[in-house]
Amino acid sequence: MHSPTKHIAESTVRRLSLYLRFLEEFEARGQTTVSSGELARSGGTTSAQVRKDLSFFGSFGKRGLGYGVRDLLTSIREILGLEQPWPVIIIGAGKIGAALAQYRGFTSRGFHVVGVYDSDPAKVGMQLGALSVRADRDLERDIAEHKPRMAVLAVPAEAAQPIVDRIVAAGISAILSFAPAPLHAPEGVKIRAVNMATELEILAYSLTHP
Amino acid sequence: MHSPTKHIAESTVRRLSLYLRFLEEFEARGQTTVSSGELARSGGTTSAQVRKDLSFFGSFGKRGLGYGVRDLLTSIREILGLEQPWPVIIIGAGKIGAALAQYRGFTSRGFHVVGVYDSDPAKVGMQLGALSVRADRDLERDIAEHKPRMAVLAVPAEAAQPIVDRIVAAGISAILSFAPAPLHAPEGVKIRAVNMATELEILAYSLTHP
Repeated sequence: MHSPTKHIAESTVRRLSLYLRFLEEFEARGQTTVSSGELARSGGTTSAQVRKDLSFFGSFGKRGLGYGVRDLLTSIREILGLEQPWPVIIIGAGKIGAALAQYRGFTSRGFHVVGVYDSDPAKVGMQLGALSVRADRDLERDIAEHKPRMAVLAVPAEAAQPIVDRIVAAGISAILSFAPAPLHAPEGVKIRAVNMATELEILAYSLTHP
Repeated sequence: MHSPTKHIAESTVRRLSLYLRFLEEFEARGQTTVSSGELARSGGTTSAQVRKDLSFFGSFGKRGLGYGVRDLLTSIREILGLEQPWPVIIIGAGKIGAALAQYRGFTSRGFHVVGVYDSDPAKVGMQLGALSVRADRDLERDIAEHKPRMAVLAVPAEAAQPIVDRIVAAGISAILSFAPAPLHAPEGVKIRAVNMATELEILAYSLTHP
Protein backbone atom coordinates (compact mmCIF):
# COMPACT_ATOMS: atom_id res chain seq x y z
CA MET A 1 0.00 0.00 0.00
CA HIS A 2 2.63 2.48 1.16
CA SER A 3 6.28 1.89 0.67
CA PRO A 4 8.80 3.93 2.62
CA THR A 5 11.60 5.40 0.60
CA LYS A 6 13.92 6.45 3.42
CA HIS A 7 15.75 4.30 5.88
CA ILE A 8 13.77 3.61 9.03
CA ALA A 9 15.58 3.38 12.34
CA GLU A 10 15.62 0.03 14.12
CA SER A 11 13.82 1.57 17.10
CA THR A 12 10.94 2.51 14.79
CA VAL A 13 10.78 -0.99 13.29
CA ARG A 14 10.75 -2.36 16.83
CA ARG A 15 7.77 -0.16 17.76
CA LEU A 16 5.92 -1.08 14.56
CA SER A 17 6.31 -4.72 15.56
CA LEU A 18 4.78 -3.84 18.93
CA TYR A 19 1.87 -1.88 17.39
CA LEU A 20 1.19 -4.89 15.17
CA ARG A 21 0.74 -7.09 18.23
CA PHE A 22 -1.79 -4.69 19.79
CA LEU A 23 -3.65 -4.17 16.52
CA GLU A 24 -4.05 -7.94 16.25
CA GLU A 25 -5.54 -7.99 19.73
CA PHE A 26 -7.85 -5.09 18.88
CA GLU A 27 -8.96 -6.89 15.72
CA ALA A 28 -9.57 -10.13 17.62
CA ARG A 29 -11.84 -8.18 19.98
CA GLY A 30 -13.78 -6.75 17.03
CA GLN A 31 -12.50 -3.19 17.41
CA THR A 32 -12.47 -1.43 13.99
CA THR A 33 -10.74 1.88 14.74
CA VAL A 34 -7.97 2.88 17.12
CA SER A 35 -6.57 6.25 18.18
CA SER A 36 -2.88 7.10 18.38
CA GLY A 37 -3.47 7.52 22.13
CA GLU A 38 -4.67 3.93 22.53
CA LEU A 39 -1.71 2.59 20.56
CA ALA A 40 0.60 4.77 22.63
CA ARG A 41 -0.78 3.47 25.94
CA SER A 42 -0.46 -0.14 24.78
CA GLY A 43 3.08 0.43 23.59
CA GLY A 44 4.28 2.53 26.51
CA THR A 45 5.00 5.53 24.28
CA THR A 46 3.33 8.86 23.38
CA SER A 47 0.66 9.62 20.76
CA ALA A 48 3.07 12.05 19.11
CA GLN A 49 5.55 9.17 18.73
CA VAL A 50 2.87 6.87 17.29
CA ARG A 51 1.83 9.52 14.75
CA LYS A 52 5.45 10.14 13.83
CA ASP A 53 6.14 6.40 13.41
CA LEU A 54 3.14 5.94 11.16
CA SER A 55 3.77 9.11 9.18
CA PHE A 56 6.77 7.41 7.56
CA PHE A 57 4.32 5.37 5.54
CA GLY A 58 1.98 8.02 4.24
CA SER A 59 -1.16 9.38 5.79
CA PHE A 60 -3.22 6.81 7.60
CA GLY A 61 -6.22 7.71 9.66
CA LYS A 62 -8.47 10.72 9.84
CA ARG A 63 -8.09 13.43 12.44
CA GLY A 64 -10.53 12.75 15.26
CA LEU A 65 -11.57 9.35 13.87
CA GLY A 66 -8.38 7.42 14.49
CA TYR A 67 -6.93 4.69 12.33
CA GLY A 68 -8.77 1.80 10.73
CA VAL A 69 -7.49 -1.29 12.57
CA ARG A 70 -7.56 -3.54 9.51
CA ASP A 71 -5.92 -0.98 7.17
CA LEU A 72 -3.17 -0.31 9.65
CA LEU A 73 -2.59 -4.04 10.21
CA THR A 74 -2.28 -4.66 6.48
CA SER A 75 0.08 -1.74 6.00
CA ILE A 76 2.37 -2.56 8.91
CA ARG A 77 2.53 -6.21 7.83
CA GLU A 78 3.44 -5.09 4.34
CA ILE A 79 6.05 -2.63 5.61
CA LEU A 80 7.71 -5.27 7.77
CA GLY A 81 7.59 -7.79 4.92
CA LEU A 82 5.22 -10.10 6.78
CA GLU A 83 2.56 -10.49 4.09
CA GLN A 84 4.55 -13.55 3.01
CA PRO A 85 5.54 -16.45 5.28
CA TRP A 86 9.24 -16.73 6.16
CA PRO A 87 10.74 -20.20 6.38
CA VAL A 88 13.40 -20.32 9.12
CA ILE A 89 15.96 -22.93 10.07
CA ILE A 90 17.37 -23.42 13.55
CA ILE A 91 20.90 -24.65 14.04
CA GLY A 92 21.63 -26.21 17.40
CA ALA A 93 19.12 -28.46 19.16
CA GLY A 94 20.32 -27.82 22.72
CA LYS A 95 17.92 -26.43 25.29
CA ILE A 96 17.61 -22.96 23.76
CA GLY A 97 17.40 -24.26 20.17
CA ALA A 98 14.80 -26.86 21.14
CA ALA A 99 12.70 -24.26 22.97
CA LEU A 100 12.84 -21.91 19.98
CA ALA A 101 11.93 -24.71 17.55
CA GLN A 102 8.66 -25.11 19.42
CA TYR A 103 8.06 -21.42 20.16
CA ARG A 104 4.51 -20.62 19.03
CA GLY A 105 5.28 -16.90 18.90
CA PHE A 106 7.30 -17.54 15.71
CA THR A 107 4.58 -19.39 13.81
CA SER A 108 1.92 -16.88 14.77
CA ARG A 109 4.01 -14.12 13.17
CA GLY A 110 4.59 -16.04 9.94
CA PHE A 111 8.01 -17.48 10.80
CA HIS A 112 7.83 -21.20 10.07
CA VAL A 113 10.61 -23.37 11.39
CA VAL A 114 11.27 -25.77 8.52
CA GLY A 115 14.33 -27.53 9.93
CA VAL A 116 16.36 -27.99 13.12
CA TYR A 117 19.95 -29.18 12.86
CA ASP A 118 22.60 -30.48 15.20
CA SER A 119 26.07 -31.98 14.84
CA ASP A 120 25.57 -34.34 17.80
CA PRO A 121 24.48 -37.80 16.58
CA ALA A 122 22.69 -38.28 19.92
CA LYS A 123 20.37 -35.36 19.06
CA VAL A 124 19.78 -36.24 15.40
CA GLY A 125 16.35 -37.84 15.00
CA MET A 126 15.07 -36.33 18.26
CA GLN A 127 11.47 -35.18 17.85
CA LEU A 128 10.71 -31.47 18.57
CA GLY A 129 7.01 -30.94 18.03
CA ALA A 130 6.36 -31.81 14.38
CA LEU A 131 10.05 -31.64 13.45
CA SER A 132 12.74 -34.24 13.71
CA VAL A 133 16.29 -32.95 14.31
CA ARG A 134 18.48 -33.37 11.23
CA ALA A 135 22.22 -33.82 10.91
CA ASP A 136 24.06 -30.58 10.24
CA ARG A 137 25.73 -32.15 7.20
CA ASP A 138 22.31 -31.90 5.52
CA LEU A 139 22.30 -28.09 5.83
CA GLU A 140 23.60 -27.24 2.35
CA ARG A 141 21.27 -29.67 0.57
CA ASP A 142 18.22 -28.59 2.58
CA ILE A 143 18.91 -24.86 2.10
CA ALA A 144 19.26 -25.42 -1.65
CA GLU A 145 15.96 -27.29 -1.66
CA HIS A 146 13.76 -25.21 0.68
CA LYS A 147 15.47 -21.83 0.16
CA PRO A 148 14.97 -20.38 3.65
CA ARG A 149 16.62 -16.95 3.94
CA MET A 150 16.70 -16.80 7.75
CA ALA A 151 18.53 -18.91 10.30
CA VAL A 152 18.55 -18.91 14.08
CA LEU A 153 21.88 -19.92 15.58
CA ALA A 154 21.86 -21.65 18.96
CA VAL A 155 25.27 -23.29 18.95
CA PRO A 156 28.30 -22.91 21.26
CA ALA A 157 30.56 -19.90 20.63
CA GLU A 158 33.33 -21.87 18.96
CA ALA A 159 30.95 -23.54 16.49
CA ALA A 160 29.25 -20.32 15.42
CA GLN A 161 31.55 -18.76 12.79
CA PRO A 162 32.12 -21.98 10.79
CA ILE A 163 28.34 -22.48 10.66
CA VAL A 164 27.79 -18.87 9.55
CA ASP A 165 30.32 -19.35 6.72
CA ARG A 166 28.56 -22.52 5.56
CA ILE A 167 24.97 -21.29 5.69
CA VAL A 168 25.80 -17.95 4.08
CA ALA A 169 27.57 -19.75 1.24
CA ALA A 170 24.47 -21.94 0.92
CA GLY A 171 22.14 -18.94 0.60
CA ILE A 172 21.08 -17.73 4.06
CA SER A 173 21.00 -13.92 4.23
CA ALA A 174 19.76 -13.13 7.76
CA ILE A 175 20.89 -14.67 11.04
CA LEU A 176 19.62 -14.32 14.59
CA SER A 177 22.42 -15.55 16.83
CA PHE A 178 22.27 -16.72 20.43
CA ALA A 179 25.91 -17.78 20.32
CA PRO A 180 28.12 -15.61 22.58
CA ALA A 181 30.67 -14.93 19.85
CA PRO A 182 31.35 -12.05 17.45
CA LEU A 183 30.34 -13.13 13.95
CA HIS A 184 31.46 -11.93 10.56
CA ALA A 185 29.59 -12.23 7.30
CA PRO A 186 29.86 -10.68 3.84
CA GLU A 187 28.12 -7.38 3.20
CA GLY A 188 24.41 -7.74 2.61
CA VAL A 189 24.06 -10.52 5.20
CA LYS A 190 22.26 -9.28 8.32
CA ILE A 191 23.28 -10.64 11.70
CA ARG A 192 21.51 -9.87 14.96
CA ALA A 193 22.86 -11.16 18.25
CA VAL A 194 20.89 -11.85 21.42
CA ASN A 195 22.88 -12.58 24.55
CA MET A 196 20.85 -13.51 27.60
CA ALA A 197 23.70 -12.88 30.04
CA THR A 198 24.32 -9.40 28.58
CA GLU A 199 20.66 -8.54 29.22
CA LEU A 200 21.11 -9.45 32.89
CA GLU A 201 24.41 -7.56 33.00
CA ILE A 202 22.66 -4.40 31.80
CA LEU A 203 20.18 -4.88 34.66
CA ALA A 204 23.01 -5.51 37.12
CA TYR A 205 24.66 -2.27 35.98
CA SER A 206 21.45 -0.29 36.47
CA LEU A 207 20.92 -1.76 39.95
CA THR A 208 24.52 -0.99 40.87
CA HIS A 209 24.30 2.61 39.62
CA PRO A 210 20.73 3.65 40.40
CA MET B 1 38.63 0.93 41.62
CA HIS B 2 37.10 3.52 39.32
CA SER B 3 33.54 4.56 39.69
CA PRO B 4 31.83 6.43 36.90
CA THR B 5 30.00 9.56 37.93
CA LYS B 6 28.04 10.22 34.75
CA HIS B 7 25.33 8.11 33.20
CA ILE B 8 26.67 5.55 30.75
CA ALA B 9 24.63 4.75 27.65
CA GLU B 10 23.19 1.26 27.35
CA SER B 11 25.18 0.69 24.16
CA THR B 12 28.39 1.29 26.14
CA VAL B 13 27.33 -1.11 28.89
CA ARG B 14 26.54 -3.67 26.18
CA ARG B 15 30.04 -3.32 24.71
CA LEU B 16 31.66 -3.55 28.16
CA SER B 17 29.85 -6.84 28.63
CA LEU B 18 31.30 -8.01 25.32
CA TYR B 19 34.84 -6.87 26.20
CA LEU B 20 34.51 -8.78 29.47
CA ARG B 21 33.83 -11.98 27.56
CA PHE B 22 36.94 -11.54 25.39
CA LEU B 23 39.12 -10.54 28.32
CA GLU B 24 38.09 -13.75 30.08
CA GLU B 25 39.14 -15.72 27.02
CA PHE B 26 42.46 -13.84 26.85
CA GLU B 27 43.06 -14.54 30.55
CA ALA B 28 42.21 -18.24 30.11
CA ARG B 29 44.85 -18.39 27.35
CA GLY B 30 47.41 -16.79 29.67
CA GLN B 31 47.58 -13.46 27.83
CA THR B 32 48.50 -10.65 30.28
CA THR B 33 48.11 -7.49 28.14
CA VAL B 34 45.75 -6.54 25.36
CA SER B 35 45.65 -3.59 22.95
CA SER B 36 42.55 -1.56 22.15
CA GLY B 37 42.95 -2.88 18.59
CA GLU B 38 42.66 -6.50 19.74
CA LEU B 39 39.58 -5.75 21.82
CA ALA B 40 38.11 -3.83 18.89
CA ARG B 41 38.63 -6.73 16.48
CA SER B 42 37.05 -9.19 18.91
CA GLY B 43 34.09 -6.90 19.48
CA GLY B 44 33.54 -5.82 15.91
CA THR B 45 34.22 -2.17 16.72
CA THR B 46 37.10 0.34 16.39
CA SER B 47 40.05 0.97 18.71
CA ALA B 48 38.89 4.57 19.07
CA GLN B 49 35.54 3.27 20.34
CA VAL B 50 37.26 0.88 22.79
CA ARG B 51 39.44 3.69 24.14
CA LYS B 52 36.40 5.95 24.46
CA ASP B 53 34.39 3.25 26.25
CA LEU B 54 37.19 2.61 28.74
CA SER B 55 37.96 6.30 29.26
CA PHE B 56 34.68 6.63 31.18
CA PHE B 57 36.35 4.80 34.01
CA GLY B 58 39.60 6.63 34.35
CA SER B 59 42.90 5.97 32.65
CA PHE B 60 43.67 2.32 32.14
CA GLY B 61 46.58 1.12 30.15
CA LYS B 62 49.76 2.70 28.97
CA ARG B 63 50.23 4.10 25.49
CA GLY B 64 52.01 1.50 23.39
CA LEU B 65 51.78 -1.18 26.08
CA GLY B 66 48.09 -1.87 26.04
CA TYR B 67 45.87 -2.75 28.96
CA GLY B 68 46.58 -5.24 31.70
CA VAL B 69 44.08 -8.06 31.13
CA ARG B 70 43.55 -8.79 34.81
CA ASP B 71 43.18 -5.10 35.83
CA LEU B 72 40.71 -4.46 33.07
CA LEU B 73 38.72 -7.59 33.99
CA THR B 74 38.50 -6.52 37.61
CA SER B 75 37.49 -2.99 36.72
CA ILE B 76 34.82 -3.93 34.19
CA ARG B 77 33.36 -6.51 36.60
CA GLU B 78 33.27 -3.86 39.29
CA ILE B 79 31.68 -1.30 36.96
CA LEU B 80 28.97 -3.74 35.88
CA GLY B 81 28.35 -4.75 39.49
CA LEU B 82 29.51 -8.33 38.87
CA GLU B 83 32.03 -8.62 41.72
CA GLN B 84 29.11 -10.00 43.75
CA PRO B 85 26.91 -12.94 42.72
CA TRP B 86 23.31 -12.11 41.73
CA PRO B 87 20.61 -14.51 42.76
CA VAL B 88 17.89 -14.65 40.08
CA ILE B 89 14.45 -16.24 40.03
CA ILE B 90 12.68 -17.47 36.91
CA ILE B 91 8.92 -17.35 36.66
CA GLY B 92 7.39 -19.70 34.13
CA ALA B 93 8.68 -23.22 33.59
CA GLY B 94 7.54 -23.62 29.99
CA LYS B 95 10.08 -24.39 27.28
CA ILE B 96 11.82 -20.98 27.36
CA GLY B 97 11.80 -20.76 31.17
CA ALA B 98 13.11 -24.30 31.51
CA ALA B 99 15.89 -23.64 28.97
CA LEU B 100 16.91 -20.45 30.80
CA ALA B 101 16.87 -22.20 34.18
CA GLN B 102 19.58 -24.52 32.89
CA TYR B 103 21.48 -21.94 30.84
CA ARG B 104 25.14 -22.21 31.83
CA GLY B 105 25.84 -18.74 30.43
CA PHE B 106 24.03 -17.26 33.45
CA THR B 107 25.98 -19.10 36.12
CA SER B 108 29.31 -18.42 34.48
CA ARG B 109 28.56 -14.66 34.70
CA GLY B 110 27.56 -14.77 38.36
CA PHE B 111 23.79 -15.01 37.86
CA HIS B 112 22.59 -17.89 40.00
CA VAL B 113 19.10 -19.17 39.42
CA VAL B 114 17.80 -19.80 42.93
CA GLY B 115 14.20 -20.64 42.08
CA VAL B 116 11.89 -21.52 39.19
CA TYR B 117 8.14 -21.02 39.59
CA ASP B 118 5.02 -22.03 37.73
CA SER B 119 1.29 -21.81 38.37
CA ASP B 120 0.61 -25.12 36.61
CA PRO B 121 0.38 -27.97 39.18
CA ALA B 122 1.58 -30.36 36.46
CA LYS B 123 4.90 -28.48 36.29
CA VAL B 124 5.41 -28.01 40.03
CA GLY B 125 7.97 -30.50 41.30
CA MET B 126 9.46 -30.99 37.83
CA GLN B 127 13.26 -31.25 38.02
CA LEU B 128 15.33 -28.73 36.00
CA GLY B 129 18.98 -29.49 36.59
CA ALA B 130 19.54 -29.05 40.33
CA LEU B 131 16.28 -27.13 40.82
CA SER B 132 12.80 -28.37 41.37
CA VAL B 133 9.96 -26.16 40.02
CA ARG B 134 8.06 -24.48 42.83
CA ALA B 135 4.43 -23.29 43.01
CA ASP B 136 4.05 -19.60 42.21
CA ARG B 137 2.14 -19.09 45.46
CA ASP B 138 5.53 -19.54 47.19
CA LEU B 139 6.97 -16.48 45.42
CA GLU B 140 6.39 -13.91 48.16
CA ARG B 141 7.72 -16.14 50.93
CA ASP B 142 10.80 -17.18 48.92
CA ILE B 143 11.63 -13.62 47.84
CA ALA B 144 11.41 -12.48 51.47
CA GLU B 145 13.72 -15.30 52.49
CA HIS B 146 16.36 -15.32 49.73
CA LYS B 147 16.12 -11.64 48.71
CA PRO B 148 16.85 -11.98 44.98
CA ARG B 149 16.63 -8.60 43.24
CA MET B 150 16.30 -9.93 39.68
CA ALA B 151 13.60 -11.97 38.04
CA VAL B 152 13.28 -13.46 34.56
CA LEU B 153 9.70 -13.62 33.31
CA ALA B 154 8.79 -16.40 30.88
CA VAL B 155 5.02 -16.48 31.27
CA PRO B 156 2.19 -15.90 28.74
CA ALA B 157 1.31 -12.26 27.95
CA GLU B 158 -1.86 -12.18 30.04
CA ALA B 159 -0.10 -13.53 33.14
CA ALA B 160 2.78 -11.07 33.01
CA GLN B 161 1.48 -7.84 34.61
CA PRO B 162 -0.11 -9.53 37.67
CA ILE B 163 3.17 -11.37 38.29
CA VAL B 164 5.15 -8.12 37.93
CA ASP B 165 2.88 -6.44 40.50
CA ARG B 166 3.36 -9.31 42.95
CA ILE B 167 7.12 -9.71 42.67
CA VAL B 168 7.78 -5.95 42.75
CA ALA B 169 5.69 -5.68 45.92
CA ALA B 170 7.73 -8.57 47.32
CA GLY B 171 11.05 -6.82 46.62
CA ILE B 172 12.21 -7.57 43.07
CA SER B 173 13.73 -4.49 41.43
CA ALA B 174 14.89 -5.67 37.98
CA ILE B 175 12.99 -7.82 35.50
CA LEU B 176 13.99 -9.40 32.21
CA SER B 177 10.77 -10.24 30.42
CA PHE B 178 10.18 -12.69 27.58
CA ALA B 179 6.43 -12.14 27.79
CA PRO B 180 5.04 -10.38 24.69
CA ALA B 181 3.17 -7.76 26.71
CA PRO B 182 3.84 -4.15 27.74
CA LEU B 183 4.65 -4.06 31.45
CA HIS B 184 4.36 -1.31 33.98
CA ALA B 185 6.22 -0.99 37.26
CA PRO B 186 6.85 1.74 39.80
CA GLU B 187 9.75 4.10 39.23
CA GLY B 188 13.07 2.62 40.23
CA VAL B 189 12.14 -0.85 38.96
CA LYS B 190 14.02 -1.73 35.77
CA ILE B 191 12.28 -3.80 33.12
CA ARG B 192 13.93 -5.11 29.96
CA ALA B 193 11.93 -6.95 27.35
CA VAL B 194 13.22 -9.52 24.87
CA ASN B 195 10.85 -10.59 22.14
CA MET B 196 12.15 -13.32 19.85
CA ALA B 197 9.54 -12.66 17.15
CA THR B 198 10.42 -8.95 17.07
CA GLU B 199 14.07 -9.89 16.46
CA LEU B 200 13.01 -11.91 13.41
CA GLU B 201 10.69 -9.10 12.29
CA ILE B 202 13.60 -6.66 12.30
CA LEU B 203 15.48 -9.12 10.07
CA ALA B 204 12.43 -9.53 7.82
CA TYR B 205 12.25 -5.74 7.46
CA SER B 206 15.90 -5.50 6.52
CA LEU B 207 15.57 -8.30 3.95
CA THR B 208 12.46 -6.64 2.49
CA HIS B 209 14.15 -3.21 2.24
CA PRO B 210 17.76 -4.02 1.45
